[in-house]
Amino acid sequence: MPYVMVQIPNTPALASPAARPVPTSADVARLAGVSRATVSYVLNNTSAVRISEPTRRRVHEAAKELGYVPHAAARSLRAGHSRLVLMPAPTIPVGPLYSQFINELQWALGRLDYTVVQYGTVGLQGDEAARAWAELRPVAVLVPGAGLGPQGVTVLKRSGARAVVTLGPESVEGAHALLMDHEAVGFCAGRHLYDRGRRRVGVLVPEEGGLEPFSLPRLKGVRRAFDGTDAAVTDLLLAYDEQAAARLAARWRALDLDAVFAYNDEYAMLLMRALQDEGVRIPEETAVIGADDLVLGRLLRPRLSTVHIELPSGRDLAELVDRAVRDPGAAPETHEVLGATVVHRDSS
Amino acid sequence: MPYVMVQIPNTPALASPAARPVPTSADVARLAGVSRATVSYVLNNTSAVRISEPTRRRVHEAAKELGYVPHAAARSLRAGHSRLVLMPAPTIPVGPLYSQFINELQWALGRLDYTVVQYGTVGLQGDEAARAWAELRPVAVLVPGAGLGPQGVTVLKRSGARAVVTLGPESVEGAHALLMDHEAVGFCAGRHLYDRGRRRVGVLVPEEGGLEPFSLPRLKGVRRAFDGTDAAVTDLLLAYDEQAAARLAARWRALDLDAVFAYNDEYAMLLMRALQDEGVRIPEETAVIGADDLVLGRLLRPRLSTVHIELPSGRDLAELVDRAVRDPGAAPETHEVLGATVVHRDSS
Repeated sequence: MPYVMVQIPNTPALASPAARPVPTSADVARLAGVSRATVSYVLNNTSAVRISEPTRRRVHEAAKELGYVPHAAARSLRAGHSRLVLMPAPTIPVGPLYSQFINELQWALGRLDYTVVQYGTVGLQGDEAARAWAELRPVAVLVPGAGLGPQGVTVLKRSGARAVVTLGPESVEGAHALLMDHEAVGFCAGRHLYDRGRRRVGVLVPEEGGLEPFSLPRLKGVRRAFDGTDAAVTDLLLAYDEQAAARLAARWRALDLDAVFAYNDEYAMLLMRALQDEGVRIPEETAVIGADDLVLGRLLRPRLSTVHIELPSGRDLAELVDRAVRDPGAAPETHEVLGATVVHRDSS
Repeated sequence: MPYVMVQIPNTPALASPAARPVPTSADVARLAGVSRATVSYVLNNTSAVRISEPTRRRVHEAAKELGYVPHAAARSLRAGHSRLVLMPAPTIPVGPLYSQFINELQWALGRLDYTVVQYGTVGLQGDEAARAWAELRPVAVLVPGAGLGPQGVTVLKRSGARAVVTLGPESVEGAHALLMDHEAVGFCAGRHLYDRGRRRVGVLVPEEGGLEPFSLPRLKGVRRAFDGTDAAVTDLLLAYDEQAAARLAARWRALDLDAVFAYNDEYAMLLMRALQDEGVRIPEETAVIGADDLVLGRLLRPRLSTVHIELPSGRDLAELVDRAVRDPGAAPETHEVLGATVVHRDSS
């Protein structure tokens, strides 16, 4: 039986830069002719120690020549804590509102010398995710949405996190809370529809997973707006898909509704198109209101009424984080941060 | 002059969990009555060493009781490298296509035991950003968009990154490249309009910052489609804003165009509405085509023609990363990964 020669490619051991040893601060010190402590003072920009300009320059030049950059983890091991602020990465598309909030937050935390990383924990939830985050030893953790429990907060704090801040519907024991009350979004949409004389109100609930932390409180808010009145609320599951919307529109008149809160502007656009294709007149037969105040709502005909949502400023949140990191023993703060106001246009 | 007493709040030194010392693997070993090495084998799930089920259980219980989680940075310092894959966090809203790609990538890298973090480097660009990333000592770096130069690649590799992969219009020396050729998007839109008999074609270029890596190649692609033909291309700056669109629509007939490639579906919706409000008939007077194949395009009347874009699969990219990490000396790979095809509907 003949042998087949299989050539296994050699890994070039010396030629590739990746195989060369990673330069250390000791290498920089040697090349610059200074102590390792001096290298550390210069490269970490320590203002406590005075170092002459020529020495500073020599250290920077040596670091550049060797391609040396400080090692954040080693530095944080020495310091006993990191400057790492960790956030779960969003797993759903983010709109302009959230994107701007995150940019502002990263910028503001960066100015306070924190490094923000968004950690993708697809598939991990709640306290299990907290354990994975804890492995990175963040000094602070910001958790949007629900899911983290008191157990998860304890795991994070025991692993050295000085501040845990939740951004969600409820506060969690041991953590600072920025309460984002999405009930308020549904509540003010419901109030608006009631004031416009509507009494048989549908509420769209997206079928897509991951949106429950927003959709369920919004539904609850509409219900609360109608508590003790003669109005009735019907919840309607809808997938973000043309055919599903057409099916719902086809049985619309049988549902006998005179208004609908459509979860957000995109679902409102989807449903409104399907209703118009069925000949349902908007707002005469059915009033429609969305949420998020996207540009697209103003482009629809009739122009879409919506709930304008105000998120907290990234700068305020950055300051809360910094305050909490400096004083980890302080009692958790709770702030209501979500603003919701109706923008009345032509669809309601 | 009277003294003012200022009470400085005490940091409770013992009561708060954050002030208690962070539990170490030595604490776990002591409580479980095993060696530190055993703790490390059990918690890092090392399959090379056989450890009995009761011992495993004892270690897990001790870790749970103490609230101990392994320290990723310490582990990576010992191992000489991390399992951290770093990506810059997007600074613009991400659509469903990109969101799905990122989720898939994180999931696939997670299965290969990598931890993915998205690093927000707002304000830092190119090689300066690379230096900040290098401080986290990632084993691999994925860089979407343009901006990273050969210098940045060298900094990352010298600091221990075994793989640098760019996802963008051009390859960069020393890095693997997934070429995302957005010229192809404009090219096939241009070809389509030419085939439909259009010869005076406008191309929308968003005024919003940060979109140039997409908008400029798309414009170039349209130009290329018309090279050597009798057709002419006019580029039109437009902000994503109703008033700006109305102003552009008001001078539309003076521009004497018979078609427009609108950058993407959202800008197409914005422009189409403004043109319709001006009484411009679509597609008779002006054909409109977008890109991204969003659901909203099918909801417009006329239904919007678009360019459907195919991103690489997250799983393929994860495998490339893993291959590159295992063989850092291998020659950089280059793959064309962006697919673009026209979806012809009623607006063109």
